[in-house]
Amino acid sequence: MTISQTGKSNERPAAKLPEGYTIRPIETDDYERGVLKTLATLTTVGEISKPEFANVIKEWASHGDTYTTLVIVDGQDQVVGVGSIIIELKLIHACAKIGHIEDISIRGDQQGKKLGLLLIQSLTKIGEEKGCYKVILDCDPKNKGFYEKCGYQQAGLEMDIRF
Amino acid sequence: MTISQTGKSNERPAAKLPEGYTIRPIETDDYERGVLKTLATLTTVGEISKPEFANVIKEWASHGDTYTTLVIVDGQDQVVGVGSIIIELKLIHACAKIGHIEDISIRGDQQGKKLGLLLIQSLTKIGEEKGCYKVILDCDPKNKGFYEKCGYQQAGLEMDIRF
Ligand SMILES: CC(C)(COP(=O)(O)OP(=O)(O)OC[C@H]1O[C@@H](n2cnc3c(N)ncnc32)[C@H](O)[C@@H]1OP(=O)(O)O)[C@@H](O)C(=O)NCCC(=O)NCCS
Ligand SMILES: CC(C)(COP(=O)(O)OP(=O)(O)OC[C@H]1O[C@@H](n2cnc3c(N)ncnc32)[C@H](O)[C@@H]1OP(=O)(O)O)[C@@H](O)C(=O)NCCC(=O)NCCS
Repeated sequence: MTISQTGKSNERPAAKLPEGYTIRPIETDDYERGVLKTLATLTTVGEISKPEFANVIKEWASHGDTYTTLVIVDGQDQVVGVGSIIIELKLIHACAKIGHIEDISIRGDQQGKKLGLLLIQSLTKIGEEKGCYKVILDCDPKNKGFYEKCGYQQAGLEMDIRF
Repeated sequence: MTISQTGKSNERPAAKLPEGYTIRPIETDDYERGVLKTLATLTTVGEISKPEFANVIKEWASHGDTYTTLVIVDGQDQVVGVGSIIIELKLIHACAKIGHIEDISIRGDQQGKKLGLLLIQSLTKIGEEKGCYKVILDCDPKNKGFYEKCGYQQAGLEMDIRF
């Protein structure tokens, strides 16, 4: 997939990947490229076997109009960044769509290189290209400044209930 | 669809519908029962023709593992409440699911009768039954107290970008 570097989505110019890095949709063999270790930067991932991982990728692919997950791969063919956008079809605003960005994670030793910015810009652009009128995400208050640098602004409160 | 009135999802006892009211999944003929007028309590709905409405209901139905929209119908066969839950499959937490509650709306003249509470409890229960470990939603700070009465707590910030 080619991701154009000139989107009107964001206020700041599109970030550039470091030499040798690529960004592309997730694939089953990313299991061996450390994608779960990178996700563990964000939260608990737990034990996931390769077949279980492959099943999630297959489920996402079979709902390709809903799910897109991108990975950033470094020069050593390791996944150092991962993030998703889920497209939701609504009735409001004349049957509009919105995007939900979820589970953004940049491996600890790769943070601060604008990989997070590039990942958010790329996912946001996918939302825009798929016809969303907005993209939303929920974040810890400590990351608010990061998303503001990505062109986002605070919109409301996230509420949750756990089982 | 039968929605059990005894869920462990919420701290408070399940709300009861007023006599003559029902809650059930949305259907195409709800177009004539004022569902769009009820949604307009929440935000701009815009012009939606019956075929456009039917197309959204069809798209939702063809992604039945992802979308559930419930309506509350009063004794005059009018839709007085509407709300959705979108189920998202993740990799984190051992391939867990979460629910996103969206677009909750109770018609102005029907507010304050615990219909909102019943709608949130019912959608939350669907999330729990579909195996979600949590359900989240975004709200205006002015509605925080309502969601707290539904058993939700503040979890983070909603950020958005608009095109
Ligand atoms: C938050 C995270 C995605 C940021 O990615 P990153 O690659 O380290 O950030 P970038 O290098 O792209 O930063 C872009 C800009 O945001 C700033 N920034 C990064 N993290 C920030 C934060 N927490 N608060 C404020 N600003 C931040 C950077 O300084 C940079 O600013 P600059 O362009 O003015 O120099 C990454 O640190 C991460 O994965 N953290 C752990 C998991 C997590 O919290 N995920 C998000 C869940 S809501
Ligand atoms: C917000 C809304 C869904 C609440 O539905 P409702 O049917 O009027 O509320 P209920 O009667 O079920 O109220 C349940 C409890 O929450 C309380 N409550 C209702 N709205 C509240 C608010 N905005 N702030 C604090 N408490 C609130 C009620 O007083 C009641 O408390 P009680 O059980 O102690 O008596 C409804 O008013 C609505 O549709 N508003 C317009 C659209 C909207 O804002 N949607 C939500 C978008 S985030």
